[in-house]
Formats: sequence, C-alpha cells, structure tokens
Amino acid sequence: MSDDVRGVPAAAIRSLVADCFSAAGMVADDAACVAELMVEADLTGADGHGVMRLAHYMRRFKAGGFNRAPNISVTQTAPATALVDGDNGIGHLVVSRATRTAMTLARAAGVAWVGVRRSNHAGAAGIYAAMPAAEGMIGIYAAVASANHMAASGSAEPLLGTNPLAIGVPTNDGAMVFDMATTIVSYGTIKKYAMQGRAMPPGWLVSATTGEPITDPKQSAEGLLLPVGGYKGSGLALMLGVLAGVLNGAAFGRAVIDFNAEDKRGTNTGQFILALDVARFMPMEGFRAAMDVHLGDLRAASRLPGVDAIRLPGDRRRYCRAERLRDGVPLPPALVAQLDDVAQGLGVKTLAQRLA
Amino acid sequence: MSDDVRGVPAAAIRSLVADCFSAAGMVADDAACVAELMVEADLTGADGHGVMRLAHYMRRFKAGGFNRAPNISVTQTAPATALVDGDNGIGHLVVSRATRTAMTLARAAGVAWVGVRRSNHAGAAGIYAAMPAAEGMIGIYAAVASANHMAASGSAEPLLGTNPLAIGVPTNDGAMVFDMATTIVSYGTIKKYAMQGRAMPPGWLVSATTGEPITDPKQSAEGLLLPVGGYKGSGLALMLGVLAGVLNGAAFGRAVIDFNAEDKRGTNTGQFILALDVARFMPMEGFRAAMDVHLGDLRAASRLPGVDAIRLPGDRRRYCRAERLRDGVPLPPALVAQLDDVAQGLGVKTLAQRLA
Repeated sequence: MSDDVRGVPAAAIRSLVADCFSAAGMVADDAACVAELMVEADLTGADGHGVMRLAHYMRRFKAGGFNRAPNISVTQTAPATALVDGDNGIGHLVVSRATRTAMTLARAAGVAWVGVRRSNHAGAAGIYAAMPAAEGMIGIYAAVASANHMAASGSAEPLLGTNPLAIGVPTNDGAMVFDMATTIVSYGTIKKYAMQGRAMPPGWLVSATTGEPITDPKQSAEGLLLPVGGYKGSGLALMLGVLAGVLNGAAFGRAVIDFNAEDKRGTNTGQFILALDVARFMPMEGFRAAMDVHLGDLRAASRLPGVDAIRLPGDRRRYCRAERLRDGVPLPPALVAQLDDVAQGLGVKTLAQRLA
Repeated sequence: MSDDVRGVPAAAIRSLVADCFSAAGMVADDAACVAELMVEADLTGADGHGVMRLAHYMRRFKAGGFNRAPNISVTQTAPATALVDGDNGIGHLVVSRATRTAMTLARAAGVAWVGVRRSNHAGAAGIYAAMPAAEGMIGIYAAVASANHMAASGSAEPLLGTNPLAIGVPTNDGAMVFDMATTIVSYGTIKKYAMQGRAMPPGWLVSATTGEPITDPKQSAEGLLLPVGGYKGSGLALMLGVLAGVLNGAAFGRAVIDFNAEDKRGTNTGQFILALDVARFMPMEGFRAAMDVHLGDLRAASRLPGVDAIRLPGDRRRYCRAERLRDGVPLPPALVAQLDDVAQGLGVKTLAQRLA
C-alpha cells in the first residue's frame, strides 16, 4: 500500500455508505443491504464496483433516476423459475432479492433460474455468484452492462456491453468465484489510464472509424472496447445479453441507456441468476474433497519459466479479502475527499469522524 | 467447393454411418441416432465432429473402448435435476438422452439441469444446445473435452481441455447457436496445418518448456494450446470442467484419458445440459419479435472498414446447413477413401455404392 493511500476499516465504509443511502431516502434495511454489497466489492478487490460508485449513485438518487423505495416484485412462473421486477430500484437490492429467490427455489427443485427486469447497476458480478456458493450451491450470474462500449464482430457501432459472467462454486477454501467481463478491459480501466496520463497497450480499444488501435486514452470517446477472444467474446456478450436482457423484457442493444451519461431515466437493466444444488449430484463432502484434489493438482503442476505461482479463478479475490479485512480497504486521497463531500452534502458523519 | 471435393448427399452419409454402427454391434435405433447427430455436425460445418470421426469411433468399438449396448440410466434427483450415467456408451447417445430429459423436466419446472457421467466424446457442442431451441427453449451445454491440451494460466502442464460452451436460442430464423471452444483453435486445426505443411500464426500454441510461440505444427506434441483471452479463457475452461466433470463424478484434470491416444479404457467423460422454457419469462411470440428487432439492429449497424457483412453467432452454421442440404457435404478424397476402407472392413455398402 503506498504512503498516500489509507487502509480504512470495512465497517467504517459500510456505515458511511448505509448512512448516505438512508439520508437519500432509503429505508434502513435496504440501505444496510446495499452498503454490505458495495463494501464486499471493495473487500474482494473489485474496486470499480465499490464505494468509488457512491457519489454517482447519490447523484442518480437526487436526480430521480433510482426509485428510493422500490416495490420489488417476485413472480414465480414455474416450480424452478421466477421473474423479478425491480421497480427501478438500485441493482444491489434487486439482484440480492433474486439470488435469495433462486436459492430457495433451487433447494426444492434442485436448480432454479431467476430473471430480473427493471433493475439497475448491481456492482460486482462475483458477489452474486458467491452467495449460492456460500450455501453449498453453484451460482451463475450474468448481466446486461449499464452502457454499450463494444460492437458486434465487424461492426463499428457499440450495441453491446461488457456483459459479465460470474460462476461461484463451493470449496473447502470458501467460494471459488470466477468473474469475467466479455471485453479485455473495462471502460473504468481506460478512465484510470486517462487520469494518470498513461498510454494504453494496443489491443484494448480500436477506433470506430478506422478499426485501428487507440493507445491514447483521451481518444476513448471515439473508441470501441475489444472483446475477449475476438468474435468469440462478442458472441458470448450477445448471448449473455439475450439471456439477461431480452428474455426478461429488459433493455438490450439500442434500448440500453448509458447509466454514466444520464441520471434521470430508469435503465431497465436485466440480469439473471441460476442456483444449482450440489447435493443433487453428489454428496457435498465428496464434491469438496474432489475439488481439493483437482485444485491441488492444478496448483502443484509445473510452471512456465518466470511464473512464481499458478493462480486459479478467485485466488486474487480471496487473498484480497483476507488482506483488506486485516489492513483495511486502501482508499486513494481523491476518493476520500469525494466521500467527504458526499457525506457533508447529506449531513452524515465523514469517514474521519467515524474513525476518530 | 474445389474440384477434388465431392458434395455427398447427407442421406447417403447418414445411412453409411448407421450401417457401420449396426455392423459394429449397436441396435438399429441407437445407430440411427448417432448417425443423425454426426451428419448434423457435417451439415452445420463442424466437420471435425462429423463423419471424419467414423474410423476412430469404429477403432474404439473394435478395441472395446465403447460399450456397444449401454444401459444408459437416468436418475431424477429433484424436480428439475437429473444425473445420467452413460454406461460408457458413445457420447451422442448419452447426451441426446440427457437433452431430452432436460427438455421434459424443463417443460414442467421451467428450467432443468441434467448432468452426465460415464459418457464419451459426443461430437459438436452446438447440436445439443440447438435441440431445446428447436422447441421454444434455451439450451446451454458444456463438456469436459476428451483430451487435455491446455494448461491453467501460468502452468506448463496440460491439465485442462478445450472445454466447449454452447448456447442455443429460438428465433424466427431457427435456432441461433453460439458454440465456442475455450482455446483459440482446436487441436484438430493444428493437425490440419501439419498435414498441409503450413506454418501457424503465433498465438495458437506455445512451448511447454519455454512458453514461446510454436509456429511449426510438427512441434505440436510439446505445445500447449492457448486459451481464448488468456487467463479468462483458462478460468472459464476450468469452471466448465467443474460443472460438466467434477460435479457429475466424471473425469477432470489428471483423470482425463486422451481419447485419441487410447482406445480401450472408458473415458468417464462428463457433460451437462440446461433447458430453460422461454414461455415462463415472456410469451414466445414476443420473445421472437424482440429477437428480430435486436438482431436486425446488430446486422444493420455501421461496419468497420473492409467488412462486408456483420456475422452473428450461428450465421455460418445456418448458411452452411442450407448450402450442404442443397449441394451435399463436401468430403475430401482422402476421407472418402478412409470411409470406403471402414465400410469394406465391416461389410457394408460404400458411399459410391449407395449413390450408384
């Protein structure tokens, strides 16, 4: 951790976030739920989906873009399926409700698929896939991203998002969570490079007019994020968008509203969550033991020159969580100042006051 | 189609394949089922999974590696889940049985997940994802590949396969099928380059000792296939392997038997298929209409310089199927000669005799 970055205890951030949402008009339980999930993103290293988003969320609350007191409705449509209407609530509330529904249905039916419509940005994909994994289930989650920055293969027009896929599996070492965007990097990464004045490697972004690489992050407005693995990544983004968006009557393609550019209109964001009960396939003990063997084999395998350790999906997440629970979440000074502004604007205690 | 490649009617190939499996000791219905699915791979352009495999499959039957008359058992483990034991039958029989089971369960429960163990190579992933899509459902299929040619990120040891993922969605234009391997190219593609004496582009294969690119396909034995999108692709392969393999008590990692190198032992191949009933989320008509709008938008979007048309997942497959139904399946002379040998060895009519 560099000198100018403070490790802030998760509990302090959590109480700040919850107080801000309460002050913005959300009931206390909902505010606590959103705070918990946002800080979980920070703890697990998904910084771009954590407290960094608070100012933006508050701006959107103020502008009327979020429903402060959404009447989230869950309609069970079959023994193992449900459709959740988020009533334009913030995504964390809506998707966590959908995930709990999927887990309840899957406990009875073995598997469940819950679709979500009229939701919003829900933060880090991995946190929802991890929830079933914490209770002996496999979780699979995908979302339509809250802005379109990718084009279909060959196209110059961004009609697809970074649509993420997350898969969580229970192991003896906690939830093993795989969480991938379908673009090589996120738009947030490019913004970070722009702020730092750094050139980007070719391969992240191409010009929508020439198809040539853009390495100057200042030109990103005219660029298209490149998919993972070329046409495979853009095809996967499309299919996930169909499953999370079109199937639920949620926004996709031209109907997607750029959540960063516009604060007022509901985004009708779509997501889905699947929960699958491991015990319907093999005894939980046997599954965990088999995972131990296989993950051990993969870690112990010979390495390429210059590689110090083999990292498997979720390793960084697990390591980061342990470290940040111990040392606090590193918040850059600019972010702390921004959070102070938000807190003062809403009349709640700042981080410094909470830590005094 | 080049001059030396004949377009052979699908019906002739199908009857050849069915007769060969019957002659090898399979009951007629099963032989017809496998022939249908193998030729479907040829029709849809998945040549590497079609009749090209016949000689290998027959060799494996002869060596006792397949059970000619498997007692495939389906155990429903919950309202929406089942586990299929393939009894070491050829994968096509086992997975098509699993897929029908998933569709039946999903019709009642909204969604179903069927795991498969003690199966074998089942051919093209897309054909199983397409089956639910032909009946108003979404299909999702994945498999543990029948050999390990990929390493976990940073590793020099191939403990992962090209584990494919396929997703099928019903549209007004037939099933839209996305079918991706988690490596950049298949091992079959590299074998084709070796046969043709062509150099490969860097980025497909790296040396397991140095990590440097291999471009000479003759050195492929010491190489590792590279995943799609670096650590994302190897992570996805791992997670799909857990879902299709470990969860079902099927082979994964060190337990995977190279199906190409060994003809006698059962491979205990694992697969899973999910079926999801669209009508539980929106009326089928509405879904198809929405897909028409979105796919139309994507196709009509502006294009990058030099791009003549925007191709979406499944386009090549659909185009190829129409063309090959009309003009026949192009079989290279070497393959026709190999099929003649197989037919003569089993005492069944050759392709030429069927076409006379």
